[in-house]
Amino acid sequence: MNKKKVCDLAHMGGKPLFERPRPIGQLDMPPIEGFLKYVREIHGSKRFTNNGPFAKELELRLAEIHGTRYCVTVANATVGASMILRCLALGKQGNVIMPAFTYPGLPHIARWAGQSPSFSDVDPETHTLSVEAVDSVINEQTTAILAVCNTNYPGDMDGLEALAKKRKIPICFDSVNSFGASYKGKPIGGFGEAEVFSLHATKLLNGFEGGYITTNNEELAHTLSVQRNFGFRAPTDKSVNPFALGFNAKLNEFSAAMALCCLDPLAKLIAENKERYDAYCDFFKDVPGISFLPYKNAESEKYNYLMAIAEPGKSWPISRDNTVKLIRAENLLARAYYCPPLHQTSHCPKGLKVPPLPITENLAKRFIQMPVGSLVSISNIKSIAEFFKFMADNSKEINKHLMGQENH
Amino acid sequence: MNKKKVCDLAHMGGKPLFERPRPIGQLDMPPIEGFLKYVREIHGSKRFTNNGPFAKELELRLAEIHGTRYCVTVANATVGASMILRCLALGKQGNVIMPAFTYPGLPHIARWAGQSPSFSDVDPETHTLSVEAVDSVINEQTTAILAVCNTNYPGDMDGLEALAKKRKIPICFDSVNSFGASYKGKPIGGFGEAEVFSLHATKLLNGFEGGYITTNNEELAHTLSVQRNFGFRAPTDKSVNPFALGFNAKLNEFSAAMALCCLDPLAKLIAENKERYDAYCDFFKDVPGISFLPYKNAESEKYNYLMAIAEPGKSWPISRDNTVKLIRAENLLARAYYCPPLHQTSHCPKGLKVPPLPITENLAKRFIQMPVGSLVSISNIKSIAEFFKFMADNSKEINKHLMGQENH
Repeated sequence: MNKKKVCDLAHMGGKPLFERPRPIGQLDMPPIEGFLKYVREIHGSKRFTNNGPFAKELELRLAEIHGTRYCVTVANATVGASMILRCLALGKQGNVIMPAFTYPGLPHIARWAGQSPSFSDVDPETHTLSVEAVDSVINEQTTAILAVCNTNYPGDMDGLEALAKKRKIPICFDSVNSFGASYKGKPIGGFGEAEVFSLHATKLLNGFEGGYITTNNEELAHTLSVQRNFGFRAPTDKSVNPFALGFNAKLNEFSAAMALCCLDPLAKLIAENKERYDAYCDFFKDVPGISFLPYKNAESEKYNYLMAIAEPGKSWPISRDNTVKLIRAENLLARAYYCPPLHQTSHCPKGLKVPPLPITENLAKRFIQMPVGSLVSISNIKSIAEFFKFMADNSKEINKHLMGQENH
Repeated sequence: MNKKKVCDLAHMGGKPLFERPRPIGQLDMPPIEGFLKYVREIHGSKRFTNNGPFAKELELRLAEIHGTRYCVTVANATVGASMILRCLALGKQGNVIMPAFTYPGLPHIARWAGQSPSFSDVDPETHTLSVEAVDSVINEQTTAILAVCNTNYPGDMDGLEALAKKRKIPICFDSVNSFGASYKGKPIGGFGEAEVFSLHATKLLNGFEGGYITTNNEELAHTLSVQRNFGFRAPTDKSVNPFALGFNAKLNEFSAAMALCCLDPLAKLIAENKERYDAYCDFFKDVPGISFLPYKNAESEKYNYLMAIAEPGKSWPISRDNTVKLIRAENLLARAYYCPPLHQTSHCPKGLKVPPLPITENLAKRFIQMPVGSLVSISNIKSIAEFFKFMADNSKEINKHLMGQENH
């Protein structure tokens, strides 16, 4: 730790704690040799995309992991989710219920599908869609519920599924952050009409870009596989959702191959993530007022342990936003966790009627998403904890400096 | 050529002319070593996507090739075109004028952008949008013209631009098939509001999947670069089209690297395409009634010569559709060229009002898209011509057989 005085802070012009940025995504790539073998095979076969052998193999393996009948690979999770919402809307232009305490892609996904986002509040403990809140915003224009599974907890899957059934609204899950997790012992992937996962480089399975959909719904799986290839189908094929629209959402063979390379060392990757998460909890024991969001029911459920979400409590002497500002200057690419909430951003359509979202607005003020993933070592985390202690020890002077800057 | 008798036809159960299919796309991949160098560099840097160094390098080189101020790489041409149409529609749900004599992705592109397709007839000589026909279908709901540039001719760029200007309708071009071509000596890429190109494996620049947009419009280029990354932008950034929607349309670094690998040998690739095209014209001189669509003004304009479009004339003794059927059975992945036209397919929205499209319907009956690209050798083309001669020599018996089959 290279800080002795407040002027050593990178924010004040000092040398950053880390020379290279420490990111918040997995950013893993297994040893290159395995991938190169695939590259040579693809080069030889000249089969580069469009439901190629590696995409098919990946689909089989992922369906097995998720315990679902079908898996459909797609170009990315965003386009996959949009395709699903279009199918579920059955030609209607309505609204899709979603949290505002999530990442900014979500409202756009609904709008590309011809739907308006409809924000619902979340549960104060789990931070995922609250069954009660969703129930209260369902109206006759609602075409679907798009729930988001968080890293620390997938959500009240039973409660949401029961509500969806009762209110006759289809539900699907953005499960990008819950890859590898379980709910009541059952792997995430088979809930609702469909679940969407990502193969983005920042996720556990790195396909550079890419995504996939798991479902037990045969018509939906077939429809999605037709949609992703421009809607091409045999003229005799009547088993496609008539409201589906073709797109180019094919996963190329190199991305599929890379994701396959990541499957074998997956258990090791998750174990390493857990070591990092545990290191955060351990090293921060001496830091006043910083706790980490627990993984709910960790003794009985599975998680991928990728994220480490810090919560500065009352005894932490610097504001959450100033803390983020200071640590980002040190080349820690931390960020305020799901803040601002989506209804307060340019990602929200202008003029959208938004119900009160008190839990969301409270949560958005509280957390910091800490650097994680394969580019963050245990000793890095030790340095980060030391840096937090340094901030706490010098908080009076730091706050004075920051207040001075704000007044200028 | 392994055919002596009519029963040797693969359609009749004989051994196909080619063991491996001969496709209709470029499907080139330069020597693998160049690509592996990039793969190792990306693996080392852990920079896999999101405006990475190779995507940026590709954009610079492509803007230079097309003589445009901007180039924005995207996940594929389809999503790129949809993003443009959304920007041009300025929040309106209207219609986009397009040809029906083109590939089936086009109506979907408009519909994802919240627009309805509006089909316009094409010019009988160039097969691209007719200025007069477009003029006649423009109405107050028209939000854009999406013209398609063909391989053999990009279109009446001057006439369409003038009409667009006169009628105050923005025009953009799907220039996927005109990559490398010129119009009045000027490279394709800088016409209209924007032009869209593909990096699909079947195109000249093989990025497996991928695409890019060329434009001289600064706001549009910036907007697209924001759109492709979920709409993320600095809160102070006011220079984004307010009707743009975020998406995930990022090009990953491996695709960008592969496209870069294809740039250096591009002139050689085009020369090889021209050799193939010339071989088709030469070897088919002895085949009765088969001619090939010429590249218009080839003495003064540039083309990529990828496609070879055959036209069976009056003296060709087998119907176009039966010819396609017979040669496809031989593992020649030929197909009827832009047939059926889009207004007669499931890609056309149900109930859409379609004006008479007599030129389109006539053209759709006439052509065969022949196998081309790096997996088709000159001697393959010689065999294909010999096979056509064989079909002509045995046409009476063949037609009898085919009629018999139809009657069953």
